[in-house]
Amino acid sequence: MLADPVRAAAVLTELRAALGDAAVRTDAASLAARRGDASGTSSGTPLVLVLPATTAQVSAVARIASTHRIPVVPQGALSGLAGGANAVDGAILLALTAMDAIVRIDPVDQVAVVQPGVVTDDLAAAVAAVGLFYPPDPASSSWSTIGGNIATNAGGMRCVKYGVTRDFVRSLEVVLADGRVVRTGPPTVKHVAGLDLTGLVVGSEGTLAIVTEATLALLPAPGETRGMCATFATIGDALAAANAIMAGPHRPSTLEILDAVVLAAIVAHVPDNGLPVGAQALLLALSDDRAGGADDAAAYARTAREHAALTVDLAGDPARLDALLAARRAFNPAMRALRGASINEDIAVPRSRLAELLARLADLSAELGLPIGTGGHVGDGNLHPVIAFDPAAPAQRHAAERAHLRILALAVDLGGTVTGEHGIGVEKLAALDAELGPTVRELQRSIKSAFDPQGILNPGKKL
Amino acid sequence: MLADPVRAAAVLTELRAALGDAAVRTDAASLAARRGDASGTSSGTPLVLVLPATTAQVSAVARIASTHRIPVVPQGALSGLAGGANAVDGAILLALTAMDAIVRIDPVDQVAVVQPGVVTDDLAAAVAAVGLFYPPDPASSSWSTIGGNIATNAGGMRCVKYGVTRDFVRSLEVVLADGRVVRTGPPTVKHVAGLDLTGLVVGSEGTLAIVTEATLALLPAPGETRGMCATFATIGDALAAANAIMAGPHRPSTLEILDAVVLAAIVAHVPDNGLPVGAQALLLALSDDRAGGADDAAAYARTAREHAALTVDLAGDPARLDALLAARRAFNPAMRALRGASINEDIAVPRSRLAELLARLADLSAELGLPIGTGGHVGDGNLHPVIAFDPAAPAQRHAAERAHLRILALAVDLGGTVTGEHGIGVEKLAALDAELGPTVRELQRSIKSAFDPQGILNPGKKL
Repeated sequence: MLADPVRAAAVLTELRAALGDAAVRTDAASLAARRGDASGTSSGTPLVLVLPATTAQVSAVARIASTHRIPVVPQGALSGLAGGANAVDGAILLALTAMDAIVRIDPVDQVAVVQPGVVTDDLAAAVAAVGLFYPPDPASSSWSTIGGNIATNAGGMRCVKYGVTRDFVRSLEVVLADGRVVRTGPPTVKHVAGLDLTGLVVGSEGTLAIVTEATLALLPAPGETRGMCATFATIGDALAAANAIMAGPHRPSTLEILDAVVLAAIVAHVPDNGLPVGAQALLLALSDDRAGGADDAAAYARTAREHAALTVDLAGDPARLDALLAARRAFNPAMRALRGASINEDIAVPRSRLAELLARLADLSAELGLPIGTGGHVGDGNLHPVIAFDPAAPAQRHAAERAHLRILALAVDLGGTVTGEHGIGVEKLAALDAELGPTVRELQRSIKSAFDPQGILNPGKKL
Repeated sequence: MLADPVRAAAVLTELRAALGDAAVRTDAASLAARRGDASGTSSGTPLVLVLPATTAQVSAVARIASTHRIPVVPQGALSGLAGGANAVDGAILLALTAMDAIVRIDPVDQVAVVQPGVVTDDLAAAVAAVGLFYPPDPASSSWSTIGGNIATNAGGMRCVKYGVTRDFVRSLEVVLADGRVVRTGPPTVKHVAGLDLTGLVVGSEGTLAIVTEATLALLPAPGETRGMCATFATIGDALAAANAIMAGPHRPSTLEILDAVVLAAIVAHVPDNGLPVGAQALLLALSDDRAGGADDAAAYARTAREHAALTVDLAGDPARLDALLAARRAFNPAMRALRGASINEDIAVPRSRLAELLARLADLSAELGLPIGTGGHVGDGNLHPVIAFDPAAPAQRHAAERAHLRILALAVDLGGTVTGEHGIGVEKLAALDAELGPTVRELQRSIKSAFDPQGILNPGKKL
């Protein structure tokens, strides 16, 4: 796209007039730094990086882009794991990181009004300071932005109790592809006057509109987190215990599983990891219930014992809990360290299919001769199989790529999805046909056209 | 539409061939019975009523309708309050009441797979029988259907804790306007592979697609319901107590308010209503928390006392609680009985604007000389002002109509919506411009066209 240097120069002139010189960057270092997200997937060569400071400036960028039919790639912190924010050739990279104000926290309505560039943990801390709670906690929350969380409908460990980012987005201000600014709906808890544009934009990975302000729902602060960690001799016992915990009345705020491959990788990679030795599966169950957090943890422990747990640790003190969570978070680096590189999946299946999923992943690992370690959010069926391989060994690279495609197909085969919380980006476009089918894909492209008839918003992504 | 009797005859012949004679009705009694919903709003003259038994038959109806460009009006129990299921001229009334099977209840995945004609309370009872819980509880739950609940994104008293119908719809099987059958997404808790078609169809009032099967999320059974009922000398005290309860850590499962006009109407209308005498406002707060329901009720009572409650009733036994809930449910009939007729609103505003809303409703009542009684779901800002008038007095009729329009404008003016849970139907089309604005309306119509390019699905409704 945009092979015409005369038009490119005109675009840059118009952008500088609208945003000022400092917010329009074409130097190689600026462009290189914003070319791709954390996925490492391939990206194109952008025309320019812009850093708008206001909704009006975002609107001006969209107007200029639509006049010249130039692609626009909205970007946040670039913490994405599917290439959704990667540059495309000739694009305007629209970084929303400078729009990072927490506009308002309202304790009566229990909402926060924020700009898209606010870092997730910064919002969480600001609302916690006034006794409120923003539950979504993607793994990248220390550097991901709310805009990016909205683009991917980000999840995290607390989804099992509280839901995903979409569940906390009340209303959005968005800039359309042609520069018009609209609100997707009122900020009330309930409203059915229109179609649910808010929910539609959430998870659309920047393909429908550019989010310039979000009204987010908050909850009263939860109780102190209590928890238990149990190990099992088989992954089947751990899954059965997880299902029993979910069937019980004490909904955990986090319910994570790690399999034997992951446990061995963490034990090898993390000194003083605090993990029990020799277990084939680990279950971590937390509760933040105000009235009964300690009772909940005890109930999870009882359930684990009823399902033949080898060890049960009631993780009494916060330091012990932090150590366990740190070990859980070492999952990805530990798997990567096994052979130097890894492919990280993000599949989800109905919980009743998890045992079959794990059995078939073990078969796949054996067949292809590569370690596949699986862990993640067992409470909502969203697991992250990680394929470890040696990047210097071509046979392993190819085997890992085959494993990747087989795992995506497996998720769909078990009635699930190729992505639970990371998004499609550029990485999983090839899997869409199998999961969605041609009619749904056609419908989604028609919806895209309704928002963006020229197709300039993040082309080549998501859809 | 459809002035051509030759084409009408052809349509009927094709419908009979596809569904069998018994499922295709053109007799006056059958058509009259299905012309309009519970709103009493005006409806058109339909061509035919069809009662499909399978998704394939629904698909056949859509194919026939799209071939002949005939409108199709999907219908459930006709419990709607906005005319969303009303007949339009020349339409095929597509009643989904015969598709009333609970296909499957899965205790591991905690989902129910149901056909659209299942009555809400029947589903709730079936899942309760296996220790599970379907929270959405619209006031019409004893006769409304899941399909209708999905069409309007129905709410109810428990929304304040559990959310609306959309929050419990995991995946839908729908028939498109041209007869194609698709699934809107996988039934997993989390998935971000596509745009959120599921959420988009929920609340679309039959304008985008015809729901033929729904996978609904369930929760473990809650605890026994405990509660308290408090009365206050002013509505302001009651609102302040409600805000304090919502700010506290014990999220109520129901938080309802009734103002002085409603209380007086119920006291006059319902013998043995169990309501305290002379109060200007009443607050009902319930908890179904397993660990701490009784503690929660006590906390609500303390909060009510801290906000100058006149009386606080801890509603210790279930019979007392049932009596209070029955009084709350008498709200609409009691208001109607005041003068013989009523207009029932369904507005929602941010909770911080409720005091202003109630003050302005009182001003409006005084100005127009009509009783306006307000009550409802104070916990999520969704209130139901009811305008009482004498249908035999033209001046009162006109004043009531003026009050109706003024209340809709007031909701929008306070940053809210003209409908929190009932839908737009035909009743509130005129209010859409003020609430949504022209750009959002245009977007919504473009989305409608993406689903239904001929515009045959429930034309003249919602959008």
